[in-house]
Amino acid sequence: MTAASTQPNGSETGPGSGSETSHNPLLKLTHAVKSVSLGRAHASSNGHATAREQLPEGQGRAAQKSAEKRKEKDAIAERIESEKAALEERYAAEDQRAAKEEPAEVRQKYAEGDLHPGEIVELGAVATMMAGQEVTFRARIETQRRVSAGLDFLLFREQVHTIQGVLTQTTPHMVKWVQRRPTESIVEVVGTLQKPKDPIRSASIHHLELAVDSIHLVSPAHDLPWDLYRPPESLRLRTQARILDLRHPSNQAIFRIRAKKVATFRRVLEDRGFLEINTPKFQPAATESGAEVFKVDYFGRTAFLAQSPQLPKQMCISADFGKVYEVSEASVASPQISVMRSRRADLGQVGPVFRAENSNTHRHLAEYTGLDIETVLPGDYHELILLLCEVMKAIFAAVVSMPELQIVRNRFPSDDLKWLEETPVIPFPDGIQMLRDDGRDVEMEVFRLGTRSAWAS
Amino acid sequence: MTAASTQPNGSETGPGSGSETSHNPLLKLTHAVKSVSLGRAHASSNGHATAREQLPEGQGRAAQKSAEKRKEKDAIAERIESEKAALEERYAAEDQRAAKEEPAEVRQKYAEGDLHPGEIVELGAVATMMAGQEVTFRARIETQRRVSAGLDFLLFREQVHTIQGVLTQTTPHMVKWVQRRPTESIVEVVGTLQKPKDPIRSASIHHLELAVDSIHLVSPAHDLPWDLYRPPESLRLRTQARILDLRHPSNQAIFRIRAKKVATFRRVLEDRGFLEINTPKFQPAATESGAEVFKVDYFGRTAFLAQSPQLPKQMCISADFGKVYEVSEASVASPQISVMRSRRADLGQVGPVFRAENSNTHRHLAEYTGLDIETVLPGDYHELILLLCEVMKAIFAAVVSMPELQIVRNRFPSDDLKWLEETPVIPFPDGIQMLRDDGRDVEMEVFRLGTRSAWAS
Repeated sequence: MTAASTQPNGSETGPGSGSETSHNPLLKLTHAVKSVSLGRAHASSNGHATAREQLPEGQGRAAQKSAEKRKEKDAIAERIESEKAALEERYAAEDQRAAKEEPAEVRQKYAEGDLHPGEIVELGAVATMMAGQEVTFRARIETQRRVSAGLDFLLFREQVHTIQGVLTQTTPHMVKWVQRRPTESIVEVVGTLQKPKDPIRSASIHHLELAVDSIHLVSPAHDLPWDLYRPPESLRLRTQARILDLRHPSNQAIFRIRAKKVATFRRVLEDRGFLEINTPKFQPAATESGAEVFKVDYFGRTAFLAQSPQLPKQMCISADFGKVYEVSEASVASPQISVMRSRRADLGQVGPVFRAENSNTHRHLAEYTGLDIETVLPGDYHELILLLCEVMKAIFAAVVSMPELQIVRNRFPSDDLKWLEETPVIPFPDGIQMLRDDGRDVEMEVFRLGTRSAWAS
Repeated sequence: MTAASTQPNGSETGPGSGSETSHNPLLKLTHAVKSVSLGRAHASSNGHATAREQLPEGQGRAAQKSAEKRKEKDAIAERIESEKAALEERYAAEDQRAAKEEPAEVRQKYAEGDLHPGEIVELGAVATMMAGQEVTFRARIETQRRVSAGLDFLLFREQVHTIQGVLTQTTPHMVKWVQRRPTESIVEVVGTLQKPKDPIRSASIHHLELAVDSIHLVSPAHDLPWDLYRPPESLRLRTQARILDLRHPSNQAIFRIRAKKVATFRRVLEDRGFLEINTPKFQPAATESGAEVFKVDYFGRTAFLAQSPQLPKQMCISADFGKVYEVSEASVASPQISVMRSRRADLGQVGPVFRAENSNTHRHLAEYTGLDIETVLPGDYHELILLLCEVMKAIFAAVVSMPELQIVRNRFPSDDLKWLEETPVIPFPDGIQMLRDDGRDVEMEVFRLGTRSAWAS
């Protein structure tokens, strides 16, 4: 129980140090095979036959190239197989030795499945507990580092929370067995909370660590394309393994912030007597003049996906609803079919809205969730300005107070959002004058403020 | 102020009595013209040329019939025009007389526009006020009945609330002017609350009525296809004037109940640590095997509209979200394109979900809003049963406590929903046995419980 505290904790020797390479000896090889496979798939999707099909005739350079690639791939696959077999043999031998040498009470402390029921707490709740308490939780092994035959550091993760686990005062067999569990595996851990000598910088729970008593495998991970605690920054790789990407605390935090934004939007509006509605997304004609729309085959007729709830919302006002809002689904047709597979939540979008604008960028979405308000204005449009200010400020305040914000910023640094308590409202002519005073070409600015349809004629 | 109380209030002489015919003298004629026009449009959409096109040649029976119909319509239109002109002449004369005879302070009590600013209260708030208080509100004239030259009863409506107004102690000119305002017009009314002799059964506010002091026209209604206080029951007519249909208190109530259901769903789940998500609605392949899906032209490729958030929700679980929910948009392709124009909110749907099932009924929707839950189950599936029971009971309890429920039942009578505090859970084999004991063909029952894909093979 003291081994951990005599070790310098934190980023130097903790499991999250990031200096070690992947502990999975097969990961690199698998990637090599995959990249060869991708190369072949690409070639065949371009209209070339695969090597297997062309070899019998033995014609052309492409066939020769494919054959070489196939040979290369086969060699790698063979190497993987033999390494796998060797590993499995070694592991089996180790397991046998452990079974012979270890007493039964130690053997019960680690196993696949065979869980002992106990009250499972969430890591978020563990953060508020005290040293000395025994806890049981389920978490993923984010990473681990075996320091010696009898000492292993683990980093356990559940959503945005991580805690350092210390495995010591046990047999080398158990340490070895735990070491062999792939990262991202889900384990059920029982242990005692203790105060580390120094705050643990690599975990979100700094002031506590867990002396692991037992660890059981709930669900083993396999086929990881990369180690999660150092996910790739490239969007292409992230979307290729979107599920793993989403596990990252920064993404978990983004989704929580996103939900908070919508909840705050709702709270402010409900307090003011707004009614939540959901409007139809199929429409018999395209609404709004500017944006492109998606066509749907509607039982042999053409329907359109709503690119805004505008018309139904306005209908609601004529129908006496007074004040309505929608967290609305709609669409924007972006040119990248890849966004269909995994929308970029980190753009702060909240759901689908459909808009068929072929603007050829990764950052343009065909589908998002809009936050829509429609209201009668008993007086004049200044009421709307005040309402929007109130909604936006409430959302800003709610997000700023979330601890999740810091988790996002650790990965994606950003400056503080600053806003004035009293929002400045600039009358249009004053705004134009300010632009003129700044030496801008005002006619162009006015043009930019208009919508396409209003100015194109 | 006493005139009203000396009259027997309520359904006998109140404005909502329903025994009178439409006060709009042009409404019936307009409808007659419309039905003739619809007849012609129908004929021409069936491939027949219109009368106008065929008359010069003077051939065939169809042409003769069209000509007759056209003549009929022209005659009606002429009659409408002359009646309109006569009415306008009479109104102008009345206005001139009023301008000559009335003192300025009375003239200021009724006018189009020219509103005097005052704190506008909602009718819902008026319900909690006391007799003797002066109030200003905006509402629609749902109906009115002139009892004598100096006494007019009005029913004012705002969403689910109605209050009886009494116009007396003023000039006959003002009563006449108010009488001429079409029902459904929005007016700003100033008056004093008073206690009626008997509770007013025709208004939602029974215990108070308004002695009208002044009444100003904010927005006049025109082209009403029917009088709202007695809307047609036929779905066809309701959808043809959906905006007017939605103004009915029963529909206002349905939308409020609908919003309450969703809010309760959210509240129960958020209390249990669920995270709200919104999943993509465009999908590169059809999900779930049973249901038909809508195809979308996605920049030259084919995409599908999600008929359920199933896969993205499951991805969230693998991505460690733990507990998620969605008020999800999706689609169901019903064969009636008419539902696109106006979804039947009174079916209790909450928004779009897309499902292309061509089942040829008005009651089957191509688009609805689903309430979706996905959660990890630390123990077993009984946890899910308990969760669903909790969610459903919370929704039942919330809806039952709403006064809006009675408003819906006044129009669409229904029995009380009864549920047990402890939901009976019947194990599957017991359920099968109960069916057998009941003399049912159990093999068929089992078949019906399965999904198409699971049992079709």
